[in-house]
Amino acid sequence: MSKIASLVPESLKSSKPSLIRVLNNKYGSDPEVVNLTVGEPDFKTADHVKLAAIKSILDDHTHYPHNWGTLGLRKAISEYLADDLDLHYDPEGEIFVTEGASGAISTIIAGLCQPGDVVLIPCPAYTLYRINAELRDAKAVELETAEPDFKVTPELLKKALDKYGEKVKVLVLNYPVNPTGVTYTPDEVRALADLLKDYNVAILDDEIYADLLYEGEHLPMAKLLPDQTLYVSGVSKNAAMTGWRVGYICGPRDVLGALAKVHQAAISTNATMNMDAAEEALRHGKADTAQMKAEYDRRRQFLMTAMDKIGFQYTKPMGAFYLWLKIPDSFDGDSMAYAEHLAEKAKVAIVPAAAFTKLPVRYFRISYAASMEKLKRAVNGLAKVFAEDGSFYN
Amino acid sequence: MSKIASLVPESLKSSKPSLIRVLNNKYGSDPEVVNLTVGEPDFKTADHVKLAAIKSILDDHTHYPHNWGTLGLRKAISEYLADDLDLHYDPEGEIFVTEGASGAISTIIAGLCQPGDVVLIPCPAYTLYRINAELRDAKAVELETAEPDFKVTPELLKKALDKYGEKVKVLVLNYPVNPTGVTYTPDEVRALADLLKDYNVAILDDEIYADLLYEGEHLPMAKLLPDQTLYVSGVSKNAAMTGWRVGYICGPRDVLGALAKVHQAAISTNATMNMDAAEEALRHGKADTAQMKAEYDRRRQFLMTAMDKIGFQYTKPMGAFYLWLKIPDSFDGDSMAYAEHLAEKAKVAIVPAAAFTKLPVRYFRISYAASMEKLKRAVNGLAKVFAEDGSFYN
Repeated sequence: MSKIASLVPESLKSSKPSLIRVLNNKYGSDPEVVNLTVGEPDFKTADHVKLAAIKSILDDHTHYPHNWGTLGLRKAISEYLADDLDLHYDPEGEIFVTEGASGAISTIIAGLCQPGDVVLIPCPAYTLYRINAELRDAKAVELETAEPDFKVTPELLKKALDKYGEKVKVLVLNYPVNPTGVTYTPDEVRALADLLKDYNVAILDDEIYADLLYEGEHLPMAKLLPDQTLYVSGVSKNAAMTGWRVGYICGPRDVLGALAKVHQAAISTNATMNMDAAEEALRHGKADTAQMKAEYDRRRQFLMTAMDKIGFQYTKPMGAFYLWLKIPDSFDGDSMAYAEHLAEKAKVAIVPAAAFTKLPVRYFRISYAASMEKLKRAVNGLAKVFAEDGSFYN
Repeated sequence: MSKIASLVPESLKSSKPSLIRVLNNKYGSDPEVVNLTVGEPDFKTADHVKLAAIKSILDDHTHYPHNWGTLGLRKAISEYLADDLDLHYDPEGEIFVTEGASGAISTIIAGLCQPGDVVLIPCPAYTLYRINAELRDAKAVELETAEPDFKVTPELLKKALDKYGEKVKVLVLNYPVNPTGVTYTPDEVRALADLLKDYNVAILDDEIYADLLYEGEHLPMAKLLPDQTLYVSGVSKNAAMTGWRVGYICGPRDVLGALAKVHQAAISTNATMNMDAAEEALRHGKADTAQMKAEYDRRRQFLMTAMDKIGFQYTKPMGAFYLWLKIPDSFDGDSMAYAEHLAEKAKVAIVPAAAFTKLPVRYFRISYAASMEKLKRAVNGLAKVFAEDGSFYN
């Protein structure tokens, strides 16, 4: 133990790293195991986007940009959101660029929460919301949603809002949902908005998968409650740009101004050439997104058909690139045990529900941001184990 | 005011943005004013570094890297520090890559401090230390150093360590020093280490300017107290890569492991192609640094000669690219008033001491990371105003 190890606060010592990363590290390099853990597009960034970055570098855009991000990118975000989702934000004062959507999430939670405050998180959910709340010594309260769709209802939300009262600073909404692949219908979004408008709570509205919806219609919460919503997105998923680390927050001017101070203290600013690349992706990347979306949809259909044939029950996926499968009742063990079981016997690495909730949910997530060849191998492995186990549901 | 504006905590509402940025925004676009506010190399990133980034992009290094940064960059950092400063860190577990040195500073302070804890900061100092402490609801305690060198002494430090006791989690050390340009001699570093070894406090050792020392010898605190020091640096200053946003932390394995969780929650990871560029800069950039350093030194000599001739008193600069000048006693006003005065009358934008300390220090900072042509114009303006004012020191 180093001399200063005792300075690490207990809350940080006990904070668990993301189980997704743990599993990815454990199985990612095993050539025998098909790794479907990470939610990362298997596509490459489009050539015209790469060329924009190269041009930026050759033009010596290697100096500090504005702390809020280049004006060019902020304008591109503004125009993209207006065109894509009928959302309207002023590039000067209502938008700033973050280090991926992760940077947006951490900025909002660190900025608005003080020790003892509450962040409401409909679960299962992406781990980063909970971890950021805990690191701020705020309480991450899981909203226990129900099978098979695991969506938060106005009743469930009202109970939590009334229970925790003014302690609630942030409600997390994320749809299409990671990890379940479901989404909220416009009517469901309206019903939640109708309740939320009566509460003084900020909505962390993570719509990073908004462009990857295969069925139904996407209504952004930010459209209904612009004065109360912090809209979070980025180019990682829709433009296959995970490694570039460009996300953003849009919202009310006064709150954005405060959050920008948190962002500036944390990282000063994002990288210039990466923002130039993101600008190109937002301005001229619609066809790329459409092409990738068509391919994801093909995989989604393939997986649904395959799982129906095997006998696996699952939640109907509408968006993102995840399939949320139910663990057979015949399996004697929790979701983590099933993940180990599949890795060993089916040679498929998946993410158990335990990564997304502390509740004993018996489900697991497959990412189909993986090639058809990999998905076929995975399906074969799952079919074999499902049969060998004599799997059944009650 | 937006509906959720009241959710912004008071401490964040009252947090002031960096005065450097304020002045830069005010005078940066005025063609009549010579802007010497920002501490950013005026050099372009070297061609071989730009080519490495371009190659990375063409090779489709556009996916998520390891949360700690690419292994290639971590190995390059390890080898660079061993060669340059005889510092030895294991690339697997004792080094991780951050979003510039800013990301390192915020990660350390957010990770180790809880509300009510104390961060000791020898002042004048770069603003980000104080802002990050305040955002964590920790107390930023300024150590009041003395003219003309403004260096912290063991006596001064001991008094603060004893006064605040176990509340002190972090001591900030930064040398060569921004904003004064002074540095600590090996003997001074040894004397501080000799005191610090008896205290359970983490040393945030910001040595981002270590490669830009024109006189004397650099002894890293991390060399003397490796078990207690978090070594912070990056490629922004020595490789003219501010816009690429690549910094790093090195330190004891157990503390790094904890801090990596904070880093991961905040931004997940840095950008892949930017890290590939930084790797090239560390592996093959020594000649670039030497060339820039020679030019900075030429400017330093020019400024010292010019200020001697004008009659301006200043602190002898040893490193970084800053000159720390004393405001004439004849001027009736504080450092902010003098900054406004110089901007108006001399058409030179500088940074007043008020940006670096809450104490009433009558000094100001000039950045000579600016072209000789700009520096000459600035000197003419300063000479004119110094004379017109009938300036004198008591």
